[in-house]
Amino acid sequence: MKAFDKLVVLDLTRVLAGPYASMMLADFGADVIKIESPATGDDSRSFGPFVGKESAYFMSLNRGKRSMTLNLKSPEAQELFKKMVKKADIVVENYRPGTMEKFGLGYDVLREINPRLIYAACSGFGHSGPYMSKPAYDVIVQGMGGIMSITGQEGGEPTRTGASVGDITAGLFTVIGILTALYSRSATGKGQKVDVAMLDCQVAILENAIARYLVSGTVPGPIGNRHPSITPFEAFRAKDGYIIIAVGNDRLWEKFCQLVNRTELIHDERFATNASRTKNQKQLKTILDGIFPAQTVDAWIEILDGAGIPCGPINTVDRVLTNPQIQARDMIVEVVHPVAGSLKMPGLPIKLSETPGAVETPAPLLGQHTEKILQDFMGLSKEQIADLRAQKAI
Amino acid sequence: MKAFDKLVVLDLTRVLAGPYASMMLADFGADVIKIESPATGDDSRSFGPFVGKESAYFMSLNRGKRSMTLNLKSPEAQELFKKMVKKADIVVENYRPGTMEKFGLGYDVLREINPRLIYAACSGFGHSGPYMSKPAYDVIVQGMGGIMSITGQEGGEPTRTGASVGDITAGLFTVIGILTALYSRSATGKGQKVDVAMLDCQVAILENAIARYLVSGTVPGPIGNRHPSITPFEAFRAKDGYIIIAVGNDRLWEKFCQLVNRTELIHDERFATNASRTKNQKQLKTILDGIFPAQTVDAWIEILDGAGIPCGPINTVDRVLTNPQIQARDMIVEVVHPVAGSLKMPGLPIKLSETPGAVETPAPLLGQHTEKILQDFMGLSKEQIADLRAQKAI
Repeated sequence: MKAFDKLVVLDLTRVLAGPYASMMLADFGADVIKIESPATGDDSRSFGPFVGKESAYFMSLNRGKRSMTLNLKSPEAQELFKKMVKKADIVVENYRPGTMEKFGLGYDVLREINPRLIYAACSGFGHSGPYMSKPAYDVIVQGMGGIMSITGQEGGEPTRTGASVGDITAGLFTVIGILTALYSRSATGKGQKVDVAMLDCQVAILENAIARYLVSGTVPGPIGNRHPSITPFEAFRAKDGYIIIAVGNDRLWEKFCQLVNRTELIHDERFATNASRTKNQKQLKTILDGIFPAQTVDAWIEILDGAGIPCGPINTVDRVLTNPQIQARDMIVEVVHPVAGSLKMPGLPIKLSETPGAVETPAPLLGQHTEKILQDFMGLSKEQIADLRAQKAI
Repeated sequence: MKAFDKLVVLDLTRVLAGPYASMMLADFGADVIKIESPATGDDSRSFGPFVGKESAYFMSLNRGKRSMTLNLKSPEAQELFKKMVKKADIVVENYRPGTMEKFGLGYDVLREINPRLIYAACSGFGHSGPYMSKPAYDVIVQGMGGIMSITGQEGGEPTRTGASVGDITAGLFTVIGILTALYSRSATGKGQKVDVAMLDCQVAILENAIARYLVSGTVPGPIGNRHPSITPFEAFRAKDGYIIIAVGNDRLWEKFCQLVNRTELIHDERFATNASRTKNQKQLKTILDGIFPAQTVDAWIEILDGAGIPCGPINTVDRVLTNPQIQARDMIVEVVHPVAGSLKMPGLPIKLSETPGAVETPAPLLGQHTEKILQDFMGLSKEQIADLRAQKAI
């Protein structure tokens, strides 16, 4: 049994933030009906990389969902969608605000049809405020929300985080919003609207950067990979890659100096305490930069692990896939797609003891389940389905 | 009414990942009882920046919670904790695996006491696998999980994301795990264990980097702020800061060239299509680098917005606080702390129409609510509380 076995989700999302959210609901058992435009479907079906003609980008975000086509500009499709809403628990969409209203399918309409409905909207700037109607992309909200201004090498340019944290954190907050509304519904019987903005989520993950600025008056900038107040707590170049060490206190520092045969550093005034090491971080880095190239990353990890000094490699993506811990945790799963064949993708980072999630079915082909959903879920006859096709509603 | 008004959370978390998770439960109304060690409390109470003697770091992560002290090494405190578990819905902790078992308070013990209990553990590497007992910090899982290897300037060093996405994404997935277990409990009446590892979460947010590597065979590295397959889609230096533009298709490119009076670029073979612009991205960047310094960021935004070209500034943290959209969305809230006074912090990025969350009370002083919780929630007498104090259990 999975946690969301009986939940029906009408999924109007495209590209990344929304599909990431509905993927998590599917992983835990929800029947996620992905509703796509008939001709081209989710825009990301045309995003590389491709396996044959199938987008690996799309496939890795839409596993476990079913696909049906629906032309939401057609009145017949709009009527059909309203009937589907009667039988659904959740609608999730990531259109620009106002789009659903243009289809005559805004929350105010849908709540009348199904007062238990949870309606989740995930957009760039949210459903209120002066920027409401502006277009957004991951890089734009990363820039606007402050995270780029504190990411990068010290004194260098502001830097985009290489994973799309603008989209993905919005997807995660959207899931939390949906599940909070579900919990509330179990008490009140009433659904509600969940409004999540990508920009808001960037502010929410800034955490202590805001406090640091307000308390000190200094605008935070990028500081590379080091810790602002603990030293040494950063990455160094070893013989064959980078090693990160996190020497959190003076006791570990003493141990570290012994391990690398540099005991004179322990009593060096510049480095004797964490405060002095942080003050003289650049001088210390120059010294440590001379030490780490002597060994490989794996050799350093064995040495440092043995002494209880927190450390780790900077893994490239190929090494992530073969890492023993990541494998032991089933964090890389393999799904067989009927056209593209076997494909590896990230697994589920939430391990539940009683109702564990699972990745069981591949991403759907465009409209793969249209007929089945219309027949079994909506009870339409073959003739009615043929009519919808003739009307170009599906 | 808030969604979690009746939920009782026993919160054993410290520092960032765990407190971030329980903060979200508190924001939506849960009674989060933060249980801290009597002498020093949550380690992050000693992390800067400080307002007077109060940690702004701690205060911005623990709003809306109550604090009681409990020395979990003491047998009396362990007994008291077990009695509290009987009346609680959720226990959340972010100790290293094995610590709760050392206290005699592992999940196997607690589930016997309260089969409805949801037990959430958020750790560095999770409760299984070869790295299970290793210490972790944000920078270590950012390094090990692959995100650092794809963040940074092109050809440059791997770069840590300036916000602690290693901790924070783990906090978000932990909340999703808790709420999924709560939904499951509403059907089965049974609680369960939620096991979330910071490293697993880093793999889960890598998304298409894994697909890109597996399909192409090329290990992805940092590519600065640009998009791998859409051009121009990156940041440029304007007169007084950076402007990001996202020219997603050829129609927008034509508009852009007209706006900047460089119509000859439209038909320049090197830049005529998105594919050719991406192929010749460096040449194009050199040209655009000559265009943007002519105007301020605000002037560019007015020009580009008017033409419907997605764009935005790279805001530093001070500009995030005064941004009109962020203000309109209540994304900066002010809380008055009894000792530190008024403090600004990020608001809630999940807007619910019926049971909205809110930031209402400041972070607690260490043990501020110990007596009240023992009296009202546990029904202890003043004498019993005095005994616990004498035994150094609280």
